[in-house]
Amino acid sequence: MSDLSGVKALVFDVFGTVVDWRTSLINDFTRWGEARGIKADWTALVDGWRAVYAASMDEVRKNPQNGYVILDVLHRRSLEKLVAQFDIKGLSEADLQHLTLGWHRLHGWPDSVAGLTRLKTKYIISPLSNGNVALLTNMAKFAGLPWDLVMSAELFEHYKPDPETYLGAAKLLCLPPDQVMMVAAHNYDLKHAQKLGLKTAFVARPTEYGPLQKYDFEATGEWDIVAKDFGEIASRMGC
Amino acid sequence: MSDLSGVKALVFDVFGTVVDWRTSLINDFTRWGEARGIKADWTALVDGWRAVYAASMDEVRKNPQNGYVILDVLHRRSLEKLVAQFDIKGLSEADLQHLTLGWHRLHGWPDSVAGLTRLKTKYIISPLSNGNVALLTNMAKFAGLPWDLVMSAELFEHYKPDPETYLGAAKLLCLPPDQVMMVAAHNYDLKHAQKLGLKTAFVARPTEYGPLQKYDFEATGEWDIVAKDFGEIASRMGC
Repeated sequence: MSDLSGVKALVFDVFGTVVDWRTSLINDFTRWGEARGIKADWTALVDGWRAVYAASMDEVRKNPQNGYVILDVLHRRSLEKLVAQFDIKGLSEADLQHLTLGWHRLHGWPDSVAGLTRLKTKYIISPLSNGNVALLTNMAKFAGLPWDLVMSAELFEHYKPDPETYLGAAKLLCLPPDQVMMVAAHNYDLKHAQKLGLKTAFVARPTEYGPLQKYDFEATGEWDIVAKDFGEIASRMGC
Repeated sequence: MSDLSGVKALVFDVFGTVVDWRTSLINDFTRWGEARGIKADWTALVDGWRAVYAASMDEVRKNPQNGYVILDVLHRRSLEKLVAQFDIKGLSEADLQHLTLGWHRLHGWPDSVAGLTRLKTKYIISPLSNGNVALLTNMAKFAGLPWDLVMSAELFEHYKPDPETYLGAAKLLCLPPDQVMMVAAHNYDLKHAQKLGLKTAFVARPTEYGPLQKYDFEATGEWDIVAKDFGEIASRMGC
């Protein structure tokens, strides 16, 4: 058992770890599409959108001369390509904006709000997400996520898993890395955090990608905590 | 009456506007000094500390080659000079740290938490303060300030009233400046915000500086709202 008594802050991956982006978006777009009279395979659109997520951030990483580009803008660019590819007809500018801001309207997993609320009584809790500040702020209000502050890749102008994000979060909190615990449903995120000295907690979200889920069914590293949900993390952290 | 129906977020000056730094620090240090057996004129120390606040930030502004320096560090540097000047004896390194972190342990004015809680139901609420992120985060937990996110001069590496702070806050929120309202007890802060297109709300805090208060007893500009407390701002904003 590693010593977690020095931990002062927990920082959370958000998409997949705190919120169920896939179910939220599919339900949101299906209802909206019916009301708006737009026909499309919304499930395929959502899965396709997420499938190009990593590549869209790599573009920013490979082209620093173009400056940092926030996730809302990357989402919008990817959406336009997918709409053409899936041949979805009749979308106005306002519709494209509405779909893009779907990423601000995501619901937490059933245990998220209760677990965060418990953790907040003893620790600083913050997202540490590739979502931009406005996205994370709007999502927190929509889903009732009780963050103490909002930390985003945008603040560091680097996307995870660049080290600037994990170390930047610790620096903003004026804490050494080993007093910060990264919480994620993704082993790769924890691997990068651990390498830089942060503590780590894994929570499995085996339905994140629906039938497309290929990995992260279980912990594949030596994480400080491996839990079934945020409630168990709160218990392990003495809340 | 200016049209405030487009406002989506309220950003708050903190020291003096949200929290009563002077009474909080004097009480904290007086109790602590008695328990610790350190004799000093704590009121004079607190007033002297705040008196050098603006000059300490100007030093950062004038010496950009030295990089940005967070307020915790400026507070500590000023404290060391004042301790020598006031000839306070017997302070250890831990004591100096405890006093510096006094700025993290400030109480809200009696109307602050209730007013913010009402405003949070309809608007994004955030500090926009020269305090660093950790200071503002710790203070929010200590005083129960229910911020949606924490915006600090530290994020922009510029102290207010540099334009980078006001415009940087609007940019992080993905809002045009006129959808953001600056709330402050200091007319100069609102003057700079208004010049950049932000909406403005003034609340008088006539006891902020105790018997030393010289100005800001009332609004001296054409602010969108002039209120006696945060409750009145909430009412004016339809909360």
